[in-house]
Amino acid sequence: MSQNTDTSFIPDLPKGPLCAYRRRAKFDWKQLKVIFEREQDLRIKYKVWKILENDPLFSKQETTMSSDEQKHLCAMQVNRMPHLDLIPKEIEQKSFGEKTKYLMSINEALHTYCPSLSVKIALGVGLFNNAIRAMGTERHMKYYDAAWNRELITCLAITELSHGSNTKSIRTTATYDPKTQEFIINTPDFEAAKCWIGNLGKTATIAMTFANLYTADGENHGLHGFLIPIRDPKTLQAYPGVLVGDMGEKIGLNGIDNGFVMFSNYRIPRENLLNRTGDVTPEGAYESVFSEPGKVLGAALESFSAGRIGIMQESVNTLASAAVIAVRYAALRTQFGPEKKGPEVPIIEYQLQQWRIFPYVAAAGVLKVAVAELTDIYLGIIEKSQKDSNGFELLTQIVSEIHAVISSSKPLITWTARDAIQEAREACGGHGYLKASKLGDLRNDHDPSLTYEGDNNVLGQQASNWLLRQWNGTVESPVGTANFLKNRADILQHTYERVLRESPIESMDFVLKCYEWMLCYLLNKTSNRVAEDRKTGVHPFDARNNSQVYGARDLSLAYAEYFALSHFRERFRRLTVNSELSQVLELLFTIYSMWCIDRHMTTFYVGGFAKSASFAEAIRSRLLTKCAELKDSAVSVADALAPPDFALNSVIAKSDGLLYENLQREFMTNKGAFERASWWKDIIIPQAKSKL
Amino acid sequence: MSQNTDTSFIPDLPKGPLCAYRRRAKFDWKQLKVIFEREQDLRIKYKVWKILENDPLFSKQETTMSSDEQKHLCAMQVNRMPHLDLIPKEIEQKSFGEKTKYLMSINEALHTYCPSLSVKIALGVGLFNNAIRAMGTERHMKYYDAAWNRELITCLAITELSHGSNTKSIRTTATYDPKTQEFIINTPDFEAAKCWIGNLGKTATIAMTFANLYTADGENHGLHGFLIPIRDPKTLQAYPGVLVGDMGEKIGLNGIDNGFVMFSNYRIPRENLLNRTGDVTPEGAYESVFSEPGKVLGAALESFSAGRIGIMQESVNTLASAAVIAVRYAALRTQFGPEKKGPEVPIIEYQLQQWRIFPYVAAAGVLKVAVAELTDIYLGIIEKSQKDSNGFELLTQIVSEIHAVISSSKPLITWTARDAIQEAREACGGHGYLKASKLGDLRNDHDPSLTYEGDNNVLGQQASNWLLRQWNGTVESPVGTANFLKNRADILQHTYERVLRESPIESMDFVLKCYEWMLCYLLNKTSNRVAEDRKTGVHPFDARNNSQVYGARDLSLAYAEYFALSHFRERFRRLTVNSELSQVLELLFTIYSMWCIDRHMTTFYVGGFAKSASFAEAIRSRLLTKCAELKDSAVSVADALAPPDFALNSVIAKSDGLLYENLQREFMTNKGAFERASWWKDIIIPQAKSKL
Repeated sequence: MSQNTDTSFIPDLPKGPLCAYRRRAKFDWKQLKVIFEREQDLRIKYKVWKILENDPLFSKQETTMSSDEQKHLCAMQVNRMPHLDLIPKEIEQKSFGEKTKYLMSINEALHTYCPSLSVKIALGVGLFNNAIRAMGTERHMKYYDAAWNRELITCLAITELSHGSNTKSIRTTATYDPKTQEFIINTPDFEAAKCWIGNLGKTATIAMTFANLYTADGENHGLHGFLIPIRDPKTLQAYPGVLVGDMGEKIGLNGIDNGFVMFSNYRIPRENLLNRTGDVTPEGAYESVFSEPGKVLGAALESFSAGRIGIMQESVNTLASAAVIAVRYAALRTQFGPEKKGPEVPIIEYQLQQWRIFPYVAAAGVLKVAVAELTDIYLGIIEKSQKDSNGFELLTQIVSEIHAVISSSKPLITWTARDAIQEAREACGGHGYLKASKLGDLRNDHDPSLTYEGDNNVLGQQASNWLLRQWNGTVESPVGTANFLKNRADILQHTYERVLRESPIESMDFVLKCYEWMLCYLLNKTSNRVAEDRKTGVHPFDARNNSQVYGARDLSLAYAEYFALSHFRERFRRLTVNSELSQVLELLFTIYSMWCIDRHMTTFYVGGFAKSASFAEAIRSRLLTKCAELKDSAVSVADALAPPDFALNSVIAKSDGLLYENLQREFMTNKGAFERASWWKDIIIPQAKSKL
Repeated sequence: MSQNTDTSFIPDLPKGPLCAYRRRAKFDWKQLKVIFEREQDLRIKYKVWKILENDPLFSKQETTMSSDEQKHLCAMQVNRMPHLDLIPKEIEQKSFGEKTKYLMSINEALHTYCPSLSVKIALGVGLFNNAIRAMGTERHMKYYDAAWNRELITCLAITELSHGSNTKSIRTTATYDPKTQEFIINTPDFEAAKCWIGNLGKTATIAMTFANLYTADGENHGLHGFLIPIRDPKTLQAYPGVLVGDMGEKIGLNGIDNGFVMFSNYRIPRENLLNRTGDVTPEGAYESVFSEPGKVLGAALESFSAGRIGIMQESVNTLASAAVIAVRYAALRTQFGPEKKGPEVPIIEYQLQQWRIFPYVAAAGVLKVAVAELTDIYLGIIEKSQKDSNGFELLTQIVSEIHAVISSSKPLITWTARDAIQEAREACGGHGYLKASKLGDLRNDHDPSLTYEGDNNVLGQQASNWLLRQWNGTVESPVGTANFLKNRADILQHTYERVLRESPIESMDFVLKCYEWMLCYLLNKTSNRVAEDRKTGVHPFDARNNSQVYGARDLSLAYAEYFALSHFRERFRRLTVNSELSQVLELLFTIYSMWCIDRHMTTFYVGGFAKSASFAEAIRSRLLTKCAELKDSAVSVADALAPPDFALNSVIAKSDGLLYENLQREFMTNKGAFERASWWKDIIIPQAKSKL
């Protein structure tokens, strides 16, 4: 990628008060934008945004609708999708990777503006179809096509009321009846009701459901996937034996109809078992199927990781939106100043404000690049697995490693976005508390991503477990994220002074070496703690649990940061850009990495890497200096991170910079702004006795 | 206070699954409750909760109503207040302190259940009347009475669209016209429109407004308060010359009608100037009034601090509610276990979960006591000022000091509550994302308290400024919060090892000595940084701004923590309780203080207080050990912190512990749960072409 990418398809921004800062930036924001996101992906997004903006069904909602109205609108929007021609026919000829990337870009664009819509499609088409590919066989492809064409409204029913993270304890049963060649589905009690299932509450006609497969002899063959019809697609009435309901209002994402369902002696055909890895013969014998293990592995990765990759892409956009809102507001809002009667200063000029919001700007830039790199690696592996010419063992290793990266990165990115939204809300003061600022909706809609597709705290442990396995055995890191562990003996001897002698603090190497030391130190510490517990007879389960705080948990987050920073460096090295762009990219790297290191500071001291004040002082002073350096470029970086105004949809952060004019129009035109309340008579207290 | 307080007025809790943990606690939760809150205050609260529970106007809202409906309901609830007989007639005979405490308890009880209602009353009666007392004279007492009797609907109009924190830049004008003996009120442009004013959007009939007072000769005499009629109390129609509107939807607190107003040559009588400190003669001459400076000071403190004290009381209850929800859920929810086929473990047993939520339990206990202590000090000072027999200088010092405590404590407490809500939301997983969990409403309604009555980041600077003045001059700390600064020379020499020799790590003294070192270190560092900047010619405004990050900001928070911990210790020393209660109180102190110190860990290392890993390891291991110790008591501590189920209003944290039964009822009875969506026909795609 070079600095001369054609960016003419990116609309220019309107002139206005933000230009005071835009003029100070030395780089072309559009060129930066095509570094954060590839040109072809951006073209897709702009196309989607333009289509949405021109369709009244997607017009901005001035006030919060009732949950039911939101569900109605969202379901209508889903149905509108095929008519918008977002997906060109040629896509079918493209490679798996290219096709997936295309769909991902569409999803990102939809998610920025309508998170409920994006999630509803992801659940109803993406995840369902991935599950069919992973667990189904030829006979299930008709469902795949039907879901794609929206003839079926689908959902994925795994979670039960009392079991989310621990899927092994799922209790729904599917008992085979050889007489009728059917499975009989039962929910033993309400605690085993399928619950939280998106699309199930009001709309789904079929559910891909996890249940324990029992053969007639009473043997439990473990969890399997079943396709269970829920409602008649012609009437949307539930079938007898299916008690299905809507869970009611949530904190956000109310366009999704999350539901619960209980089955009572509900019969489905034998063929509805997703039988890729195991099947039941018509006569009722259970048979394991082992074939094409590489493909099965790849499909499993696709099935369970696609959602998490999607969440990361969406969350990094959410992070960017929050940062953009905070930066634009800070550049426009003035408050206080050096002279009592003199002009006031834009709040972006205050060091405290810079320190509060710029790390999120930097995080958005670095993590956007990291997620793009991760997506490429991920899609590459799946393509590889489809070819199935690789060694099974190597593929297993690759899949494990990529799972570790995803399991640590999803928590890192979703938490960073969460914190960015909150900091932006506070940094925009009262005006940030307006619904029209968008920050409340961002927060409420982003919130579940910390929990779904793997609770962040539980998911993160899968990454640390992988790392600990590398530490305690032979390092098997075909993707390369943990190769540095081979030098563990040397790395553990590192100190600030020594690293400094090898790599100046200004270098990206310096940062990565600090991380390599930290990762080795945390691995060593965590591993020793577990070993000591085991020696004294502690159960492995407890030993692992007691190694999380100040150990495995920090490890997992640090690993995700290391992955992001090292892949940002790789991308940076591959780029051919002018020195101005190069400079701003380095600034973002530095601000994000110094901020991260600062948050791990105790580890560096406790572990003996740093011994005097000089390390912390160097990191912190660098962070503050670089924030000050970014100040004049921050508005343009925000422009490069921002979706168009329509999609950003924040009255306090429009690209025209007309902060107060936009607020005025918002206030003046909000529904009934100047009307006397219709209920005015109810609240008058007669003034008869008044002394006034 | 002794352990034998009569607690029979506190309703017993229902038996149920939570008793498994309740039985393990060695203390009486009701006795703990009357340590967290005084018996007489609790009696008031239970009375209020009972009255609300029995009145259908306050019944639980199943779904979010529209903003307009919320405003309607809230205004109706305000009007219902006088009919509920919450305030006994005898209250008028009580002292100012007792009366205020009574009203504060009512407010706390209202706020726990209906935050909008509490804020609406606080704005419309409390703050308005405090302002009248502080700035008005005899001629304004009729407004005071009318507001109290709700014949007027009032509001406080200070903030303008482009000026919140910096009130000195307010631009609304009030120009005296001697011909008619009126003030002419004008809003120069929309940026100077009064904005965010609670009660103004739809209901207020009169606004206490800050404007620049101009005499006819064109001289600006600065900001003064004016009583400005907005709407006709008989019709709620706005008066000509007043353009008043509602700002529209916010992230939360939508029961409040926040509004904006512009005045255009709008005339009000001369007498509507609040003339306590300055007046205009009928002929138009401006006259300063200096009288009873002690009372003026006390009234000013009352006026500007009452709201912040109220926010702290409310926020500490919010913090407690979040902690209670997280603890009860964690004690009931099981997930995973040591044996694959064995029973699962309640998530409260996991160290990581304990570490995530117990510090907030401890914070709720410690900060509840600290706020009660602060309230007593505050009310005592106001009573003192009313007697006016004290030296003016001493009173000035007291008011400054208490202002510093409030300015640092409001950020600390509101931020802690913010974080507790988020951690609880995540710790309760998906079920925490239900609206019925209450965590979303808690978050959205609590959020503005980080901004209003002094933006946390701006307000905190007032505390650090006071501390820096003590550091750089003579220590004047009549309340005693900064007396330790007199030993600064010695304290700065402290190290972990030395403190440990004097006070064992188990002692409360150890903690407070760590804090005293940290405060001195941060003061020294911050003060030196400012001095160095000044030496190199940096403007004092910039020098101060550049001393916030890693300096004044940490200082302010640490000071608030120190105040809370030292006053908790004082209260603890005054108590006569049995060893079981004493033990749990010490546990809470230890968990909260170790957790706070851990968050300041870098300071202890950078400042040279700690040199080896041992300090951090001791603090962290103590935190984890004490969390483990609290585990068996946590449910009972939560009971002691919890409001009754009606007020807590969380389906996942009822005191009967019937988690899944309560969820089942919630799901089964939510509006239209099992109904086919009324819009079902809109989303059916005809199946004609289907292959299924």
